Amino acid sequence: MINFRSDNEAPVASEIMEAIAIVNCGTAYSYGGDSITGDVSAKFSDLFEHDVEVFPVTTGTAANALALGHVTPPYGVIYCTEQAHVLVDECGAAGFYAGGAMMRPLRGADGKMEAPMLASVLASHGSHGDHEAWPSALTVAQATECGTLYKPEEISTLAEIAKRHDLVFHMDGARFANAVSALGCTPADITWRSGVDILSFGATKNGALAAEAVVIFKPELAVEFGRQRMRGGHLVSKMRYLSAQLLSYIEDDLWLSLANRANRAASQIAEGLSGLTSAEIFYPVEANALFVCFPEHIIRGLSKDGFLFHEWPTHPGMVRLMCSYELSHDDVTLFLQAVRRHVSNPV
Amino acid sequence: MINFRSDNEAPVASEIMEAIAIVNCGTAYSYGGDSITGDVSAKFSDLFEHDVEVFPVTTGTAANALALGHVTPPYGVIYCTEQAHVLVDECGAAGFYAGGAMMRPLRGADGKMEAPMLASVLASHGSHGDHEAWPSALTVAQATECGTLYKPEEISTLAEIAKRHDLVFHMDGARFANAVSALGCTPADITWRSGVDILSFGATKNGALAAEAVVIFKPELAVEFGRQRMRGGHLVSKMRYLSAQLLSYIEDDLWLSLANRANRAASQIAEGLSGLTSAEIFYPVEANALFVCFPEHIIRGLSKDGFLFHEWPTHPGMVRLMCSYELSHDDVTLFLQAVRRHVSNPV
Amino acid sequence: MINFRSDNEAPVASEIMEAIAIVNCGTAYSYGGDSITGDVSAKFSDLFEHDVEVFPVTTGTAANALALGHVTPPYGVIYCTEQAHVLVDECGAAGFYAGGAMMRPLRGADGKMEAPMLASVLASHGSHGDHEAWPSALTVAQATECGTLYKPEEISTLAEIAKRHDLVFHMDGARFANAVSALGCTPADITWRSGVDILSFGATKNGALAAEAVVIFKPELAVEFGRQRMRGGHLVSKMRYLSAQLLSYIEDDLWLSLANRANRAASQIAEGLSGLTSAEIFYPVEANALFVCFPEHIIRGLSKDGFLFHEWPTHPGMVRLMCSYELSHDDVTLFLQAVRRHVSNPV
Amino acid sequence: MINFRSDNEAPVASEIMEAIAIVNCGTAYSYGGDSITGDVSAKFSDLFEHDVEVFPVTTGTAANALALGHVTPPYGVIYCTEQAHVLVDECGAAGFYAGGAMMRPLRGADGKMEAPMLASVLASHGSHGDHEAWPSALTVAQATECGTLYKPEEISTLAEIAKRHDLVFHMDGARFANAVSALGCTPADITWRSGVDILSFGATKNGALAAEAVVIFKPELAVEFGRQRMRGGHLVSKMRYLSAQLLSYIEDDLWLSLANRANRAASQIAEGLSGLTSAEIFYPVEANALFVCFPEHIIRGLSKDGFLFHEWPTHPGMVRLMCSYELSHDDVTLFLQAVRRHVSNPV
Repeated sequence: MINFRSDNEAPVASEIMEAIAIVNCGTAYSYGGDSITGDVSAKFSDLFEHDVEVFPVTTGTAANALALGHVTPPYGVIYCTEQAHVLVDECGAAGFYAGGAMMRPLRGADGKMEAPMLASVLASHGSHGDHEAWPSALTVAQATECGTLYKPEEISTLAEIAKRHDLVFHMDGARFANAVSALGCTPADITWRSGVDILSFGATKNGALAAEAVVIFKPELAVEFGRQRMRGGHLVSKMRYLSAQLLSYIEDDLWLSLANRANRAASQIAEGLSGLTSAEIFYPVEANALFVCFPEHIIRGLSKDGFLFHEWPTHPGMVRLMCSYELSHDDVTLFLQAVRRHVSNPV
Repeated sequence: MINFRSDNEAPVASEIMEAIAIVNCGTAYSYGGDSITGDVSAKFSDLFEHDVEVFPVTTGTAANALALGHVTPPYGVIYCTEQAHVLVDECGAAGFYAGGAMMRPLRGADGKMEAPMLASVLASHGSHGDHEAWPSALTVAQATECGTLYKPEEISTLAEIAKRHDLVFHMDGARFANAVSALGCTPADITWRSGVDILSFGATKNGALAAEAVVIFKPELAVEFGRQRMRGGHLVSKMRYLSAQLLSYIEDDLWLSLANRANRAASQIAEGLSGLTSAEIFYPVEANALFVCFPEHIIRGLSKDGFLFHEWPTHPGMVRLMCSYELSHDDVTLFLQAVRRHVSNPV
Repeated sequence: MINFRSDNEAPVASEIMEAIAIVNCGTAYSYGGDSITGDVSAKFSDLFEHDVEVFPVTTGTAANALALGHVTPPYGVIYCTEQAHVLVDECGAAGFYAGGAMMRPLRGADGKMEAPMLASVLASHGSHGDHEAWPSALTVAQATECGTLYKPEEISTLAEIAKRHDLVFHMDGARFANAVSALGCTPADITWRSGVDILSFGATKNGALAAEAVVIFKPELAVEFGRQRMRGGHLVSKMRYLSAQLLSYIEDDLWLSLANRANRAASQIAEGLSGLTSAEIFYPVEANALFVCFPEHIIRGLSKDGFLFHEWPTHPGMVRLMCSYELSHDDVTLFLQAVRRHVSNPV
Repeated sequence: MINFRSDNEAPVASEIMEAIAIVNCGTAYSYGGDSITGDVSAKFSDLFEHDVEVFPVTTGTAANALALGHVTPPYGVIYCTEQAHVLVDECGAAGFYAGGAMMRPLRGADGKMEAPMLASVLASHGSHGDHEAWPSALTVAQATECGTLYKPEEISTLAEIAKRHDLVFHMDGARFANAVSALGCTPADITWRSGVDILSFGATKNGALAAEAVVIFKPELAVEFGRQRMRGGHLVSKMRYLSAQLLSYIEDDLWLSLANRANRAASQIAEGLSGLTSAEIFYPVEANALFVCFPEHIIRGLSKDGFLFHEWPTHPGMVRLMCSYELSHDDVTLFLQAVRRHVSNPV
């Protein structure tokens, strides 16, 4: 069964499974005192060309909520898009970790935060004294929930607005690998070099078992982060197995190779569909996701063929095709053939 | 100086000051064990023609946040309008008291929640499992922050939608008196009889010193409310002085007389401005507030004349005129004369 | 009926009622923008011989919880005594405002925090990394819940320990007036001059209607306190009535005269009971409270006589006699006569 | 190096590593929709001879905090021992998840909650109205943090007291396997059959990679638990790998075999030390932990030999020897030989 449902339905990449097996030998300090975890910050500092502090956790929601909660006071406001995973998919975790802070969604095209909108909303703040909650953090997803990307200069523009209003700038990088691979930039280019302060670095959706990391680019934002992680129940005891995933993930650019496979699948599908009038691609296909509007009979037909995907609730007749690293060229070919077959055989 | 800045800048009504003085005699049980407080629930039950439980507090934000916090689980969502006081003027209090629950603002005309919009947003929920926060409460202000009103049948329509989705229906009645007086209905008509479950009953903006009450129409929603009030630091020790305000406020329809004065001032101004092309009334004037767009020179002129009002940040050139119970017919006449003078003498 | 139940059952002092009446004239800025409130910080700075920031609120629980919540991170620990009002009488308010921080009660004689115990508990911290919550705040009541007092040098000793461990030092001054009056010191002597950082300054139990103030001695601790107060629903709109209470309370040493009356009543009772073997005074009588163990028949007899007091749950046969400013010399004489009568007439 | 530092420093048991590898094949529904996770509740219901709902998470702190947070209202009190992991090792997580509820530690011998103490503390509650936080939950660890055990009848006695006061009874079973194995009872005997309502079932300390489960014995306590888990960031996406650990852990009694090895090592050490006057065993050795007071030179000597253990901060001269499943008979023999050597060669 060819699965476009979600990249987190894919199995663990063999290199990462092997890395887990390798560290399963003898005893080791728990809670991150082990030597493997000891390497993580250094290796990530190399990767990001910047001194960073890294806090591994097991879920993306934990990474996002801990990061946003740590930098947002309880009387604060977090700005995000209307499609933001932190807003609509995490059951209020960020508000919980931020002690009741508010999420304020802003409307934008293609799932992206738009600089003029953000600037205008922030400009309207500040005249209402203690009555208004305090603008505290900006969060954007890279790649976005719509499969689109921010270019480095777009991030810089948002960062400038954020700095002007003393907002901490957080990036939800659940699909950070897909973004870096597709943009052909360095990890630094779209993070600290463009003004991002804190990153949720995802690995699970791109081949890890359960490994994400909060990467902090400013040392002052890392103070007592460890205690917040503990208090949230997110400090795993046998940390070596989590750190091993992260290290093997970034070793020899494995993360980019995996992401590249997923991205390539998405672009091949986009290309294959481009000539078809009965397949309307909704958002620009820039990473590993496609949102496609098909006539009803094609959706039914593809389902019957066994292809797995989500019909997307925001628009009737739209499906989301989320490509994982595991999809092969043949998988994509089979899918495109099936689409063409249903196009030419309307019921 | 004639003051349209806010109704909470008015002094305490003399009847209420007197009631405070009268109870200042001898010792009395603290924390609500006194006999004056003992009368409050019964008198309010009479007023609302329904058994109610009443919890006096000193601020409207406390009433709203305690009410919403008590009925919303921490993984819940509270629906409100984009102008809602609970959203934009209370520094996130509702989210704090609800343990981090989310506020979701919905757009509507004239500061009112619109039934089709609410129905459509709620209909889109429920398919996303534990990932989505749980729709828990609906809150509307009566009168609204824009000075408009919900008719009983509008409230019923919203209540039906709320019930269908198991939402608790809360009414922010900071200006409840203005609404009852203007609608010419009973307190029951626009609360429990129309499906409201819990009410923040305001008195401070309409002549009290510092007195609001959470009025609960369903006994099951009152369970442990007292403990929540204590935990928020909102159980005043010398409760008799708070209860005396509430009792004198509703005695002999004082609250409606006071509100009627404020409403009448607003409608007189609306009438007086209606013929002027350089005064555009923005929202329907249904209670005690007007939002009026004036040319710049009129705003400057009125300010120079000593009239007090807020220029409203949402629209350049718009002022809010909030009428208190204390404004006299002469005050209004003076104001209208001044406007006409500035209209005929453009700079 | 002569009332020893609680000082918060007493009425409002006439000077304070008058002050409230005086400000009830014309309109005034709300939310503390008025000129009366504008005077509060200056007058309190004079009183404390130190620049202070003052945040009026209506309840002692609000003052304590806001103060402790503001200076304690959510992963923090607040140290208090086992009898502390913040621990046993405020339904967890401090933990709520501190985002879930822990209260750790320490045992001490006569309701007082003991320096060696505090030092020893704090010394045992710090070796357990992120696993342990962070010692953050120390709170003591002055006067204590047992009616005892800390001398300035005792406060200094506690403060030194607190500073050594970076704890913020909070004083619950619900009965601060009674302490200052009894110690014959200045307000400064037992606060900032001895190392206290933040004070809940109580007035309600000593003659106000509903007026307490958070007094902050270090400007850095006052940052965003106003927003926290708003978020808790504790910013009253008609602030002038609250500020007027506070100003009249400290004017011409009214607060000390009132407290002196209450303290004198307590010491007269203590003296009157001192010769009686059937009246055992439990804690040193240093302020306005007595805890006395009487034989059962005396307790019953005094109740039957109409004297009002609480039988204290911590020790069978013990009553608490809390003296308010309103007790007269005659009240005390009548009480002592009654006690002697019951002593000499055992049932 | 022979490691007594903690059982969570041991590697993953080979059977569990194999189970993880086996499920790493093809795609599977994420967030627990997969067929492996689908089996977990049924298999655990068999194991516990009772219909249970099971919520896998990755850390013991998450299991405890989610469980206690779910059953404790924000104005509640959680009773625990002074040594409780939830109190001293989890950085306030339970208070965080319970919205600021209070932890109240009770003193007891050998790290165990004592029924008379609990009964007496609970009996003193209930007369103080809204001022007092509400007794809500009781939590005990089985095995305890001191390596001791509760017999089924001891649990029943505690449960009766808890039920009388409407407390939910939670068991922290981080070392539940060690308890079941040592007591020779069934899992049911020391949980629901004795009155436990909700269990944190640990596997990580006994051979899993990162796998714990909240096991709920009463369906009404499971309502919306999933949403709380999500909101805490504890719903792992690739759940099959977590469920596979849990299933292999309980298959063919693997969990009891592993625990038995650890317990046997502890009892062999206890036996080996029993004749030595310079080794004082502090708590009864009933599971897999020993707390032993040695003379200083023995502690230094064993360290120099390379044995790994914690010097325990609560008592100078005391070490904790925590035995993991991985310790062999030879390891224990070597350790005992070393002790005897140091005993006979005092420096």
